[in-house]
Amino acid sequence: MSRIEDVAKKAGVSIATVSRVINNSGNVSEKTKMKVWKAIKELNYKPKILASALARHKEKFYVGICKSNRLIKMEKEKTSPEFYSVILEALEEVGKTYGIKFEKMDIQKPEKCDGYILVGGDSTKEIINFYRELEKPFLLLDHYIPGEKIDCIVTNGYDGAYFVTNYLIKKGFKKIYHIHGPLYSYGFKSRFEGYRNAMEDANLIPRFFEYDDVNDNMSEVINSIDIPEAIFASNDITAMRIIRELRKRNIRVPEDVSVIGFDDILSAKDFDPPLTTLKVFKDEMGSLAAKRIYELLVGHDVHPILISLFTKFIKRKSSI
Amino acid sequence: MSRIEDVAKKAGVSIATVSRVINNSGNVSEKTKMKVWKAIKELNYKPKILASALARHKEKFYVGICKSNRLIKMEKEKTSPEFYSVILEALEEVGKTYGIKFEKMDIQKPEKCDGYILVGGDSTKEIINFYRELEKPFLLLDHYIPGEKIDCIVTNGYDGAYFVTNYLIKKGFKKIYHIHGPLYSYGFKSRFEGYRNAMEDANLIPRFFEYDDVNDNMSEVINSIDIPEAIFASNDITAMRIIRELRKRNIRVPEDVSVIGFDDILSAKDFDPPLTTLKVFKDEMGSLAAKRIYELLVGHDVHPILISLFTKFIKRKSSI
Repeated sequence: MSRIEDVAKKAGVSIATVSRVINNSGNVSEKTKMKVWKAIKELNYKPKILASALARHKEKFYVGICKSNRLIKMEKEKTSPEFYSVILEALEEVGKTYGIKFEKMDIQKPEKCDGYILVGGDSTKEIINFYRELEKPFLLLDHYIPGEKIDCIVTNGYDGAYFVTNYLIKKGFKKIYHIHGPLYSYGFKSRFEGYRNAMEDANLIPRFFEYDDVNDNMSEVINSIDIPEAIFASNDITAMRIIRELRKRNIRVPEDVSVIGFDDILSAKDFDPPLTTLKVFKDEMGSLAAKRIYELLVGHDVHPILISLFTKFIKRKSSI
Repeated sequence: MSRIEDVAKKAGVSIATVSRVINNSGNVSEKTKMKVWKAIKELNYKPKILASALARHKEKFYVGICKSNRLIKMEKEKTSPEFYSVILEALEEVGKTYGIKFEKMDIQKPEKCDGYILVGGDSTKEIINFYRELEKPFLLLDHYIPGEKIDCIVTNGYDGAYFVTNYLIKKGFKKIYHIHGPLYSYGFKSRFEGYRNAMEDANLIPRFFEYDDVNDNMSEVINSIDIPEAIFASNDITAMRIIRELRKRNIRVPEDVSVIGFDDILSAKDFDPPLTTLKVFKDEMGSLAAKRIYELLVGHDVHPILISLFTKFIKRKSSI
């Protein structure tokens, strides 16, 4: 059976280079990779990626969980407590299986760690640059900043919004509003774009309205729009407020207007009427984050990627 | 040391459910997962994800590589031969380390396999539905169809386009054109959106022009536009044709107009002038595809995801 040394010799490169090619960890030119793969093929060498990963598995890693300021504020105000707690529970539990111990810390003053996970949708470029300078692996959990090329794990809001807008179009609706949160948040922006593209692809006019659930008044929003056939809200909280305001005006949901939310928070199921929505897979996000930071820690497949989880459409009674 | 049986008993669920929670494979409610994790924590049970993956690693999987019709046509015409061959070389070599044997087959009439990889940017919803009915794991390589929730591996065209448009804006340019391929292709569409959003975010007017490199004439395109300060083309081939047409008109690149491509094909480096572009990480795509189909085959982290690889900006002489 061939050994890694034979491959290195045949390809005319170092053992370290062969290892980098096998583990996809570091700068190796395509030409060199091709040479290494050719040698691997000719010698019928069988590298064991998982075996080496398992060997390293005994190592203990120490990773900081750094919550964004907005998230800490939200937790204090209990506006969205179950969302991130589910993600972080999964992260910590699955992390253990990879030999990772997590510790919560201040995003502005992190302790020395092997790596970091920045949690929440409002980390800025300044924070990113600060973490870049620490020269340790890190990733964004539930956030993405275009053009920064940082590993991140997000929900595919674009896809879910595109899907559900098409669903409403197929029901025969033409006048479909989108009421969305502030577009500086990647989550809201991607849902907005999924809605807009689905409408444009169907030659329908996108009609949208920004609503900040912290500062704005839903009654004013509803007063200012023509009541449409359907409303897709960019989160469940907003959808619930829309339904309450419509009812005050004796507009029936879903008989007169179909209303759909996003997130599938725990209270969506028990709302009256139960809310049609797109389920966000919170614990899968945590689990993928644990796996991804582990890969970055051991230097496997380190080229930066965005991992985006598809949502699931949950049909309940707030829409026809 | 605790065993999986103890966890199952304490959580009041079956061993199979505990296993599904640990491996993230299958439908388990969040509530049940929480119970299982709580039991794992209290019993200090240490599951070995990687160990079980390694055990299964001895299995031989047989996976079909199904090239799209457009890709097969391109290969015959040798319009883009080195691009997909690099991806597939990496896929096959890394696949071996996971115990996967790949076989190329007709996308319309695939043989019986454990799973399938559909390669290329033009697989339709009809093809997707056909593969769905086979009830075997499959993924799209270099393609994504919004709203279909299929596992896929793509290049992050949005991110690269957003980055490079900002780069040109920071250079002081205001009149920046985007000449793009047909927008039914996800690759071109996402680059287009990255360009458009970057321009809009900087309060600049997006100016774009569709150019199909198979059917259109670049001379006519250049005749029909006001010559701008910079042109961002949605692939390298298009950028090269733009540069040739500008030169025929005695317009200098980069002195009069900066031109930037996308892909970093082999000939980009040796073009005159050498082409500034965004590098697509072809072998990393192949490697990630091998890993992802393996995960789907063994039932680990099966919730469908989109994996999107960030590009790298390569500054050469076709732009200032």
